[in-house]
Amino acid sequence: MFAEFEKFIRAQAEITDEDIKLFRDTAIEKTLRRKEFLLQEGEVCRYKTFVSKGFMRTYRISNDGTEHVLQFSPENSWTTDPESLENNTPSSNNIVALEPSELVMWTKKDFNYLFEKIPNLKDYSQKLVYRNLYLSRQRIYTAISSTAEEKYDEFIQMYPGIISRVPLHMVASFLGVSRETLSRIRHVQVK
Amino acid sequence: MFAEFEKFIRAQAEITDEDIKLFRDTAIEKTLRRKEFLLQEGEVCRYKTFVSKGFMRTYRISNDGTEHVLQFSPENSWTTDPESLENNTPSSNNIVALEPSELVMWTKKDFNYLFEKIPNLKDYSQKLVYRNLYLSRQRIYTAISSTAEEKYDEFIQMYPGIISRVPLHMVASFLGVSRETLSRIRHVQVK
Repeated sequence: MFAEFEKFIRAQAEITDEDIKLFRDTAIEKTLRRKEFLLQEGEVCRYKTFVSKGFMRTYRISNDGTEHVLQFSPENSWTTDPESLENNTPSSNNIVALEPSELVMWTKKDFNYLFEKIPNLKDYSQKLVYRNLYLSRQRIYTAISSTAEEKYDEFIQMYPGIISRVPLHMVASFLGVSRETLSRIRHVQVK
Repeated sequence: MFAEFEKFIRAQAEITDEDIKLFRDTAIEKTLRRKEFLLQEGEVCRYKTFVSKGFMRTYRISNDGTEHVLQFSPENSWTTDPESLENNTPSSNNIVALEPSELVMWTKKDFNYLFEKIPNLKDYSQKLVYRNLYLSRQRIYTAISSTAEEKYDEFIQMYPGIISRVPLHMVASFLGVSRETLSRIRHVQVK
């Protein structure tokens, strides 16, 4: 699992062999079966988590019991609840494995230690936070401005590999459109 | 204008008199009339901007010519296009004064200089970015999970002072619901 992370982080930032050793010494590896949880609502998120294999999904349950998908995290991406992790507050979200998954995790304390020891990590991390912010702003714009068709088209363009790995009702949930609407759109497009 | 900023930043972070002098020496003050632009689509955003008085609005125009409101920035808040500012890329957004406004602005270069000289500024700035990220995630959740009524109720609770200062169609745009739907909701609530 760590090998995938090493390859990933070396491509993202200037990282030395010593840095890799520090990452490795503090990393926790974890395997999840399908439907196993990394985080459940009410728990405090304790880890920064890298998905080295598999596919994780973040969702929140509304008062009427409906699941709403906030994030898909395939291999070579990060997943966490930043608010819960930073503030030590119970999470409102669930993070669950959609496929058998392999994770590399660091506690907040260890990651702060890595920030001190690995100068380029802070830059990389800041870029990542900014990127999340841009993507969130783009998703807000799409949510308030686009038709269901446009939302679906943008999703396919932005996440071409995801659509075949996820049940349609989860894509509908992610986009904030009904399952019936999305089925209709796909039907029309297939024709 | 700077006086409001000084009061604001002293309440937000541990800031010394020397820090304040650095802020003041690099600040640019600007007054905008109603409907004057701070940023227009296609321009590169060059400033971090604090709204010391007035009210700014960020919006984007979609292909069909419709305005979509991304952000309201009343006094004592920041407004910028983070993506354009960080990456020196043309902005997709417009930032315009909804009321006569007074702004305190710093170039990116000067703000980076302040980051070097004012240790607590980096912490404050990072908290601000994280807060933006949480609020964006919350707004995404609301956008994909809530009815128009729930969106409106959440807006009133989160921004109690804003509703009276903004035309209803801009609130509708911010929430991603039609003006007619929002009028109907308000009508029902008044009854």
